[in-house]
Amino acid sequence: MIHSLKWSDTERKIARSVFDAALQRELAETVLAFKALAADAGTAQQMWEVEEFLGRRRREIDSKYDYRYSQLIVVFAQLLREQRISAEDLRGLSDEKQRHIRSIAAL
Amino acid sequence: MIHSLKWSDTERKIARSVFDAALQRELAETVLAFKALAADAGTAQQMWEVEEFLGRRRREIDSKYDYRYSQLIVVFAQLLREQRISAEDLRGLSDEKQRHIRSIAAL
Repeated sequence: MIHSLKWSDTERKIARSVFDAALQRELAETVLAFKALAADAGTAQQMWEVEEFLGRRRREIDSKYDYRYSQLIVVFAQLLREQRISAEDLRGLSDEKQRHIRSIAAL
Repeated sequence: MIHSLKWSDTERKIARSVFDAALQRELAETVLAFKALAADAGTAQQMWEVEEFLGRRRREIDSKYDYRYSQLIVVFAQLLREQRISAEDLRGLSDEKQRHIRSIAAL
């Protein structure tokens, strides 16, 4: 059901903009965390821990930011739950989509 | 032939010490290179480049530092070729082993 919703051109523009902004924010946070870890690393062991951190973050981000229209409702629900986006960011999407996103986010 | 050479207790001690010292030096170099790259990284793209650098270095180091007696002649030959160890470091190994190491290093 939610996987086959139709997205208008306006909705696609809004979705792309909200999606990209959330991704850029999460990447910027990750860069800051990475730089702090790297600055503190003084041993090979700590260096390999930074590698593990980066690999984990890359896998998480790759799997979370899936811009397929069949997945976007679930993606936005997760971002809303994590407070990476707000309900206001989604204004301009159809009421039906906003309702789906909010109810999945509340699960 | 070189894979089945016998290693005396004294040779094993020398080998272990030369091997560990070279590994620690290479790890310390890698930590410095990593910290310089990380300090310069300001974007997500540069952060992922650091992850690739670390993954590559880890694979290279894991495969180079193989402390099996069947492999040590070749390992020391590679370290000698890369000038990570010197011929003097290997004094105390049998003349035969030193000759094998030097001739493989020169290939």
